[in-house]
This record gives sequence, C-alpha cells and structure tokens, in this order.
Amino acid sequence: MSLSEIDILISEVGPRDGLQSITTLMPLEAKKAWIAAEAASGVREIEVGSFVPARLLPQMADTAELVKFAKQLKGLTVAVLVPNARGAEAAIAAGADKLTLPLSVSETHSLANLRKTHEEVLEEGRLIKEMILALPDGERPHFEGSLSTAFGCTLEGPVPDARVAKLAEALLEAGCDEVGLSDTSGYADPASVKRLISVVRSAVGSEPMTGIHLHNTRGLGLANALAALECGLTTLDSSLGGLGGCPFAPGASGNIVTEDLVFMLEAMGLRTGIDLDALISVRSILTESLPGEELYGFTAAAGLPLGFYQSTQKMERA
Amino acid sequence: MSLSEIDILISEVGPRDGLQSITTLMPLEAKKAWIAAEAASGVREIEVGSFVPARLLPQMADTAELVKFAKQLKGLTVAVLVPNARGAEAAIAAGADKLTLPLSVSETHSLANLRKTHEEVLEEGRLIKEMILALPDGERPHFEGSLSTAFGCTLEGPVPDARVAKLAEALLEAGCDEVGLSDTSGYADPASVKRLISVVRSAVGSEPMTGIHLHNTRGLGLANALAALECGLTTLDSSLGGLGGCPFAPGASGNIVTEDLVFMLEAMGLRTGIDLDALISVRSILTESLPGEELYGFTAAAGLPLGFYQSTQKMERA
Repeated sequence: MSLSEIDILISEVGPRDGLQSITTLMPLEAKKAWIAAEAASGVREIEVGSFVPARLLPQMADTAELVKFAKQLKGLTVAVLVPNARGAEAAIAAGADKLTLPLSVSETHSLANLRKTHEEVLEEGRLIKEMILALPDGERPHFEGSLSTAFGCTLEGPVPDARVAKLAEALLEAGCDEVGLSDTSGYADPASVKRLISVVRSAVGSEPMTGIHLHNTRGLGLANALAALECGLTTLDSSLGGLGGCPFAPGASGNIVTEDLVFMLEAMGLRTGIDLDALISVRSILTESLPGEELYGFTAAAGLPLGFYQSTQKMERA
Repeated sequence: MSLSEIDILISEVGPRDGLQSITTLMPLEAKKAWIAAEAASGVREIEVGSFVPARLLPQMADTAELVKFAKQLKGLTVAVLVPNARGAEAAIAAGADKLTLPLSVSETHSLANLRKTHEEVLEEGRLIKEMILALPDGERPHFEGSLSTAFGCTLEGPVPDARVAKLAEALLEAGCDEVGLSDTSGYADPASVKRLISVVRSAVGSEPMTGIHLHNTRGLGLANALAALECGLTTLDSSLGGLGGCPFAPGASGNIVTEDLVFMLEAMGLRTGIDLDALISVRSILTESLPGEELYGFTAAAGLPLGFYQSTQKMERA
C-alpha cells in the first residue's frame, strides 16, 4: 500500500515523546526492534528521537544511530525533534527525513523549557533553513515548526488565538515548510481545535498545516482528533501504548494512544495502511524492554469487535 | 439555572449501570448521598436503579426506596430501567419520572439476557403504555425505549442498520415517547454513530430521538459523544467515575465518565448546568462507600486547565 492509498498518516512519536517522559532508558536494540516492528505493521512516519544534549535527556542519546537504522526501513519517513540549529546539524548529518522545531506559544514556557525567547527560536529556524538550502536538491529534509502550548499553558493559562496565528506566520517566514498545532498541556477541546485550525489557516492557508499533536491529559484526545479530522487535517501524532503517561494525571496517557486512534480511524472507514493486530502485538516489545512502565489504551485489552474486518471492508449493511 | 438554560442534558446512569456491573453492594445511605450530591452539583437527570428481581441483581434491591428519596430533590428527573411490565408497575408505584425499557437489537442477546424475543419485549412495551395511560394526566412518566446492541453485538457481530430503524419504529408504535441508541458492546465509532442516528431519524423523525447511551470500551466514548452532539442530540448518558468499569477491557470505564464528558462540553462552551468542581468532589462518596472499586476518568486527576472558568465565560481572546 503506497502513501497515495492511505487517507490518514499516523506519525508515531512514542520513541521521542514517550521515551523522553520516562526515566528508564530503553536499550538501543529494543528501540530498533520497536521502530522496525511498527514500520512493518504499516506505520509510515516515526519520530525516532530528539537531538538534544545527552546530559539533558540521556534517553535520547542514541538518536543519530536510530536515524541511520530507521533510514533503511522501506517507505518510512524518519522524523526527529530539533530544539535548535545545532540539533538540526546533527539530524541532517544522520540523514533524517523530517525535522521538527518546537516553538512554544507561551513565552514563559519557552523561556522555562528552552531558555529562549520567541525571536531567538525563530532565529534558530532561519539558521536551520539556511543549512537545509545548502544541501543538494533531493537531500533536503522536510522542515516543520510545531506550535507547542497552542491551546494554553500550565504557566500562562489561555494564550490568545491571534498570537498562535502570528507565530505560525513567523515560523513559515523563518523557513518552515509546514506548521503544526501542539496541545502540550492537554487543554484542547473539540471546539478549540476547530477554532484554532480555522484561525491559523485564515492566516497561513490550508496547505502548510496538515497535522496536529494532541495529548490525552483530560481524556479528550480522540474527540479532539475527530475534530481535527473534520477540519480536514490528515496527519495525527500518537504514541504506542500511550507510553510515557501524563505526569499531571495518573492513569492518563500523555499522547493519544496509537492503537485506539488507528482503531477509531479504521472503524470509520478511513485507511491508515496499518494492520491493527500487528500494531497491537508491538506492545510486547515495550512491555519486555521497559519492565514496570505502564501502557495505556483500551483497544488492545478489549480486542477488536466481532466481525470488525468484514464490516470495515464496506460490508453490505442491509 | 432552569432546564431552558442548559444546552445538553447529562443523564447520570452510575447508580444503575455502574452499580449493576459490580458485585459490591453500595449501602442505601451512600446511594442517597451520591444521588443528592450529584443533583446538588447541577445534574438534572439520574437513573437511580432498575426494577429487576432482587435475586438477579441484589445491587438494585432498594430501587423503590431510592426513587422515593430522589423524588424529593428539586428539579431532578428520576429515571429507572424496567425490563418488563412487572418492573414498570413497581416503578410507577414508586413514582418514577421516566421509565426506560431496553430492547436488544441482537435477538441472540435479547434471548440470552432477558430470555425474550423482540416481539415479547414489544408486548411488554404495549402493556407498560396501557398502565401509563391509565394514570391521570400529569402523573404519567416519560417512557423511553432503548435499543441496546444497536452498534453490534458480542454474540452476533454487526447488526443491520435497517433492523435498528425497524425496531425503533416498533418501540414507538408500542407506545414509547422516545427511542435511544445504546452502544452496549462498545462497538460504535464516530462514523457509525452519525450514520445510525441519520438512519433511525429517517425512519422515525428527529423529535422522538434526542439521547444516546455510549460506552468507552475501546476508548472512543467521548469521540462518539462528539459525533452525537454534531448530529444535534441533546441528552448524553454517562457514569460518575466510570463506575463499574468494562469487564472486557481492564482499565477501561464502561460508561463514559461524567466528569470528563462535562469537562468536554463546558470547555466547548456548551452549558450543562453542572458545577464541575462540585461534581468531581462527589467521587469521594464512591471512594468511601466502595472500597477497592476502581474509579476512572482523567479530568479529576489532571484538574481543570489554568484559567478554565475565565476562558469558558467567553473571555475576549484577542
């Protein structure tokens, strides 16, 4: 099944967002097995890690090795997070297909997390774009700007829609190919998802905004994903087993759970290209390599509905 | 706040659907405290129990007493489940405001659970209607038919949409004032919710179908609720703390969780008339009276977003 044969692109972020949220280090070989198995189940994009200093996030120290490994997997887009130009340099050297630069809409959060003002982050964006343009055509990675805390911030509270739109424009001006909204704090609801997508698209057009990164902090993850789908977004970030959990809500997955999301989409008749049984079986790699870490999601435990495959194959319902 | 001042009616089903799913008996006084506290938080409809033989469901043995108690709570619609005419007779004697008769779309499920064919359940419906009509005008309870397994059955698998529509018509012909879809098995997805509401409304019109009973077996509960809202449904069943859980999916709530649902609706700017902080505090009654029973839901643990009340009060977002 080629990319043209799917309706929705699932971007698996567990190896980055999931693993950076837990203190246990996953061995490199387990990470490779996870990424390979998930790609084999039909997942077409995986964020394999983050190019941050190893002293800050030792969980991400092997990102360059993972990029090189994942590049060998056929049909897989290898994505990474880069907090700055130095990280992007390493990502490009490793051969990543897609770089994501986070820009926190809450400047308080930006200063607390990255110790950078908005303008300083945008300057990193411009430097990254220069690096990308210096590469031969055909070797240039896709460059995405991610608007974190777009739906509100645990430090600042609500953030104005107009500021989100303005920063989306600024990221595109700095050289990003695309911008995405990120519900870092789990503050989004279906109405705010629809409103903010509309506001940002009014500013930058629909073409450079196709994806969204949602959390499940207050249980609204899949409802928010549905709202985004209804706006026509086609790329959804999620994490296998909701790995990493949510530090603010015991029992809640942090990212939305890939298995439940894929179940929802396939049940709705939207093609993800993913074999759900194969995807669910990848959970065992996490269970074995991260003893004691809780996995989330309901579909894996409940199993698929009786007759699910027949009914999703456009069964005559007479 | 009067009924005309809310957009969505939350029908709390925990004292019935939640308690009947667990073996622990909740003491009558705790049930009363729960119902009173939830009504005080602004919940306007509570299904307080089920008129089934006590030898089958000892958890429901005190339903008549609960109806009499709940009737004293101002502004509360006191709903009960009645599996047959005998149950309805007891419900009417106790003074219930609303009776719900379940009819399982899967006849296999109907025979297994109620030991009745469709025609036999419909005959019970006709008998109930006769009883209701024999009451003086003004004392007649609202009579709802609930189409259980409407989205599929764990025994039969998918059920044909046309059969759901036909049984909805049959329930209204038997004398129900209203019909509702019930996702007993947790098989619904947002697309099937929208499709089935449309199919049934094509058969019976919009007026006699305003509510839906959703489960969260595969994590899609709130996404399905959103789909129902988008079709214009205005009554949503849910259960405080997702009490009862889901026997097929450890870790999953059975019913959708009232607190998370109310959070979603209020965040979307839809008025439920419910004070969310007060609602969340009612969980402690369940914790104390049902030691060892797990409660579900994410909003209670995560807390409300910083600035939530200001932002839902139509704050200027400039």
